[in-house]
Amino acid sequence: MTFRAHRALREAEVVVGYHTYLQLLGDLLAGKEVIGSGMTREQERCRSAVDLALAGKRVAVVSSGDPGVYGMAGVVLEIVHHLGVAEELDLEVIPGVTAATAAAASLGAPLMHDFATISLSDLLTPWEVIRRRVELAAQADYVLAIYNPKSKKRVRQVLEVQELVLRYRVPDTPVGLVRNASRQGEEVTFSTLARFTELPIDMFSLVIVGNSGTRVLGQHLVTPRGYVW
Amino acid sequence: MTFRAHRALREAEVVVGYHTYLQLLGDLLAGKEVIGSGMTREQERCRSAVDLALAGKRVAVVSSGDPGVYGMAGVVLEIVHHLGVAEELDLEVIPGVTAATAAAASLGAPLMHDFATISLSDLLTPWEVIRRRVELAAQADYVLAIYNPKSKKRVRQVLEVQELVLRYRVPDTPVGLVRNASRQGEEVTFSTLARFTELPIDMFSLVIVGNSGTRVLGQHLVTPRGYVW
Repeated sequence: MTFRAHRALREAEVVVGYHTYLQLLGDLLAGKEVIGSGMTREQERCRSAVDLALAGKRVAVVSSGDPGVYGMAGVVLEIVHHLGVAEELDLEVIPGVTAATAAAASLGAPLMHDFATISLSDLLTPWEVIRRRVELAAQADYVLAIYNPKSKKRVRQVLEVQELVLRYRVPDTPVGLVRNASRQGEEVTFSTLARFTELPIDMFSLVIVGNSGTRVLGQHLVTPRGYVW
Repeated sequence: MTFRAHRALREAEVVVGYHTYLQLLGDLLAGKEVIGSGMTREQERCRSAVDLALAGKRVAVVSSGDPGVYGMAGVVLEIVHHLGVAEELDLEVIPGVTAATAAAASLGAPLMHDFATISLSDLLTPWEVIRRRVELAAQADYVLAIYNPKSKKRVRQVLEVQELVLRYRVPDTPVGLVRNASRQGEEVTFSTLARFTELPIDMFSLVIVGNSGTRVLGQHLVTPRGYVW
């Protein structure tokens, strides 16, 4: 967590967020009004936050990682502009450490070169759009940082991604899996493009697929930028 | 800055980094050995850091933003493995807030959907590789987060990028420019794909090019994820 996010939480009167993320805040929530809800209730949650802010409260909406990367920042801004109340509020988006770079740090330095960040959740995006993005990114030799790779119900997508990327990269392309990046109980696993789907993957996992230059060096995954040694 | 990075710096006996970034640390450097050097001296700087760590010192190598995104993490790991000394050292990569998400937060929420992170510096990467990456990312409708867009000597690349992206996106596609993201003197400018190259851009600038869904809502740039209001 950054100092800036910590200060905003300390100063907030109300904290709004997904149950699981609120739990991570522990003592920071003491003495505050807390509004938690489950997954898929994002719009409702952010609407409550905006209503409370309009009523004069100091409100913090929390996401994990960076709120601007598959988080709540966009949802809050969409509501505020939809309601036409942006001018009445003192809005601030506070950046954070997104799962891709948190996971990368635990693996070594796999994102040292150009990378594409992609979510496999097809709840709000047609699967054909996601497939096409994966394929073109694989073709362009981007390192891939894959969010929401697999859920209990959504298991097929990660297999299709594997198959698509294998059209452009060798089977032993290094892959890193990080579960609960930067949180307690973090799990880091090294694998390959041909085999990573055999490992346990869920919604707390971030998958990094190396590009043609990514190497396993000891216990580290590194994508060199091209320095000569 | 995160609490974790702050602690590592407090505990370090030696801090190594590019002059400009060391200056941002101010009082945190008090009482420490400081090794600063200019641009293009990355390898030398990191080699000194590794040598000092091997000699038993507690060393911190600093980058701006996230050290694993076009920063020093990969360089240090490459040296350590090249020298075969990884086992002798207690290495840790500490993630941070990378310029793309810091800039995004200042603009609103333009990275709410899949994005590609690309550096236009062709010092270590052939320009043809970069061009191809830009073109395929544009084709796949990724939001683009462009690092190192332009320097005093390197001015042509950003114009080529503009021309490439215009093949796939309309001229009034929103573009956000952030100079000194999250630092003192931060400058935030909104523009369009057709016009952003007329604005001052340098190595302290981060350029975000919206995808087909990115919208300007009041004073915010937002890429909706697809919620219906």
